[in-house]
Amino acid sequence: MEQVIAFAERNREAFLEGLKAFLGIPSISTDPAHHADVARCAQFVADELRRIGLEHVAVMPTPRHPVVYADWLHAPGKPTVLFYGHYDVQPVDPVELWTTAPFEPSVRNGQLFARGATDDKGQVFINLKATEAHLRTTGRLPVNVKLIIEGEEEIGSPNLDAFIAGHTDLLAADLALVHDSTMFRKGLPSICHGIRGLVYFQVDARGTRADLHSGSFGGSVVNPINALATMIASLKAADGRITVPGFYDEVRPLTAAEREAIAGLPFDEGAYREALGAPALFGEKGYTVLERLWARPTLDANGFRGGWTGPGAKTVIAATAMAKLSMRLVPNQDPDKIAALFEAHLRRICPPSVELTLTPIPGRARPWLPPVEHPHIQAPARAPGPGFGARPVVIREGGSIPVVATFTDVLRLPCVLIGFGLPDCAAHAPDERLDLDCFYGGIRSVAHYYQELAAA
Amino acid sequence: MEQVIAFAERNREAFLEGLKAFLGIPSISTDPAHHADVARCAQFVADELRRIGLEHVAVMPTPRHPVVYADWLHAPGKPTVLFYGHYDVQPVDPVELWTTAPFEPSVRNGQLFARGATDDKGQVFINLKATEAHLRTTGRLPVNVKLIIEGEEEIGSPNLDAFIAGHTDLLAADLALVHDSTMFRKGLPSICHGIRGLVYFQVDARGTRADLHSGSFGGSVVNPINALATMIASLKAADGRITVPGFYDEVRPLTAAEREAIAGLPFDEGAYREALGAPALFGEKGYTVLERLWARPTLDANGFRGGWTGPGAKTVIAATAMAKLSMRLVPNQDPDKIAALFEAHLRRICPPSVELTLTPIPGRARPWLPPVEHPHIQAPARAPGPGFGARPVVIREGGSIPVVATFTDVLRLPCVLIGFGLPDCAAHAPDERLDLDCFYGGIRSVAHYYQELAAA
Repeated sequence: MEQVIAFAERNREAFLEGLKAFLGIPSISTDPAHHADVARCAQFVADELRRIGLEHVAVMPTPRHPVVYADWLHAPGKPTVLFYGHYDVQPVDPVELWTTAPFEPSVRNGQLFARGATDDKGQVFINLKATEAHLRTTGRLPVNVKLIIEGEEEIGSPNLDAFIAGHTDLLAADLALVHDSTMFRKGLPSICHGIRGLVYFQVDARGTRADLHSGSFGGSVVNPINALATMIASLKAADGRITVPGFYDEVRPLTAAEREAIAGLPFDEGAYREALGAPALFGEKGYTVLERLWARPTLDANGFRGGWTGPGAKTVIAATAMAKLSMRLVPNQDPDKIAALFEAHLRRICPPSVELTLTPIPGRARPWLPPVEHPHIQAPARAPGPGFGARPVVIREGGSIPVVATFTDVLRLPCVLIGFGLPDCAAHAPDERLDLDCFYGGIRSVAHYYQELAAA
Repeated sequence: MEQVIAFAERNREAFLEGLKAFLGIPSISTDPAHHADVARCAQFVADELRRIGLEHVAVMPTPRHPVVYADWLHAPGKPTVLFYGHYDVQPVDPVELWTTAPFEPSVRNGQLFARGATDDKGQVFINLKATEAHLRTTGRLPVNVKLIIEGEEEIGSPNLDAFIAGHTDLLAADLALVHDSTMFRKGLPSICHGIRGLVYFQVDARGTRADLHSGSFGGSVVNPINALATMIASLKAADGRITVPGFYDEVRPLTAAEREAIAGLPFDEGAYREALGAPALFGEKGYTVLERLWARPTLDANGFRGGWTGPGAKTVIAATAMAKLSMRLVPNQDPDKIAALFEAHLRRICPPSVELTLTPIPGRARPWLPPVEHPHIQAPARAPGPGFGARPVVIREGGSIPVVATFTDVLRLPCVLIGFGLPDCAAHAPDERLDLDCFYGGIRSVAHYYQELAAA
């Protein structure tokens, strides 16, 4: 292992430059204008996989953006790891809030700033560089490895389930490995054993055929902005609970042991609030911040648009208003069931003066929470330690990684999530960044992890 | 009068071409990008006034957009009319909903489509063409006339009160005349004797320093879109009443006579609803549609913006959300008092997790309702009849024309509002239009009106 780690240390600059090239490609999967960039990025990943010595590299088409596959299967008798990551990224708006351009990676104070730096290009690159360090020094890997790196995660992986179901033999493995989550805090390597699910809708409200003068018509017709705001407001009680009937019916309550474990983590609410720049925190009554993030469902308006929002006055009653609404789900909520409850409730509370259109946005994800006692979490997963010099903690993640439930349900694989992002990495936000200590520590950790898996 | 009317009929084509040239100038007063267009439009008006024979034409600067002045004062012993209009227009968004470009005037089915066709360039032009018809045929006008045509009406006339107060001698007159309202319906000439006031705010809500990932952070912080939606929702009860404490304290109740007069107008609620393309009408309980429009205050969100509103999904909790909120006021509500009540209430209901910024948008307007018995309404105002062949009705207007209160309070002038727009003229909206029968009928009416005033 020494030479593997030494190789990684010697090549810090080259690894960073490689990541910068990866991050320079604006592979925004949701935006049709960036379709060619997403394709170019898939090609970049394939070239890189080939360059570091992986085999059977293939850019495999799906109805929208391709999956890049590669493998290295020359460790007979050793476990096979199916590595998953994604090369697509979120949009960059509001772009004016970025300190440097999102697709011109820039290092400041030991942080690499770029869209995708943490989510997920930087973490994919951590895996590739650990693999490269093994192959370039020993000529082999301690375990068998298969990789699928997709281009649709940020739009909810609409084609990934079908891809996996169609390639169960190709993807057969002993465990799945994902780097797409965060460390609990810098220096504290973290195994994630729970993620939330997701349901996402666009809601369009129409009041009249065309925009109206708010003086000439105000008082006689519904204002769809007011009406949609009222509907959204009614979805949550003052104590933060969601009011959709049946919404909590299948939520598994936290056990006393779980609450104790969460309470035992080193979490400072005041520092968290300050880091976010929030006047006060807000969430469902009766739960701590970490409990709300990891084990309680949410309902958020991710966007709202209607009427005149330019400078100055326009006295208009808009014909339409639009909101994007999403819900994070926890075990044992079922995304399709929750979507049906939500849709029925919205239609029920919609006033007769409003024409409502509900459009499901692809990317429904089941929540995931395997038993924490699994050997892959309890034993080899401790390997991130050596890369950082501390024993890992077991945490959960508030976000959704839909593929994890697919690995569990379709491929019947245990799934290990080791994250190298930090909680303030600004994923999905302006100035997204990757801490370079986490980048290099992550490479060392994954190199060790493959070694531990082979020895287990 | 016969030759005056004959001249107007003979020159229909030339009048229409002149109006098209006027409408072709994108004089959007709220948009700094159109500053030069507004100046060009003022010059167009001045040139036109000079061309038709008015005197002392002057483009008079204000801190933002100029007022164009002109007069003709050679009718000794006859009343002096102070005509008011505006040459600025509303923005054109959403521009994709226009059938033809908003600043390329186009006639279809007897309607002239363009931004400003009715509000207010078309109506200003009606007055100018009636004046031209008199001057070109008889060499004189039946009355003395002063005109002020301003460029800031659509941004709330921020400099007009000071302009008027600074030129009380120049503007001395016997009555003010305004064409900036609508006819009750086509063929039914209408004198407007009541208009609503206006208070307008921009409300900005901030939850955190930067946008956040809705998975990683959802449940722990306030979502400013949800919070602002909740605040807006709470401003109105389910029965349509506004909940700001004290809001209705000074609302003068409708008298039985007023309700009777309003009920006597030929109004078809079903046809109104259908014309707007609304699934159902909505308004304050206990009042008819016309009562709500003319004699009850409103609160409308004119715009709302926050988070991701592009195509597809973005799982973000926005750092900020913004709404534009306005209230239409009725006698005897005072705009400044209502603004103070509104601001105090919003600060009271704002949750501690939200940082609130309230920005008053210029253009506060007092409501106006002179005694309907005034001779200028009861006698000469009947003159619009001859232009259309029907006796006029006395109505009110839901919109705000701030200058009317200034004419009443500062210049102590009775004010006659004769409107030539139609209720479906789409003022402030896409496909704004002017019915050409109203255009030509309006020119005949104003020509007659000046004659009647001289004879009274």
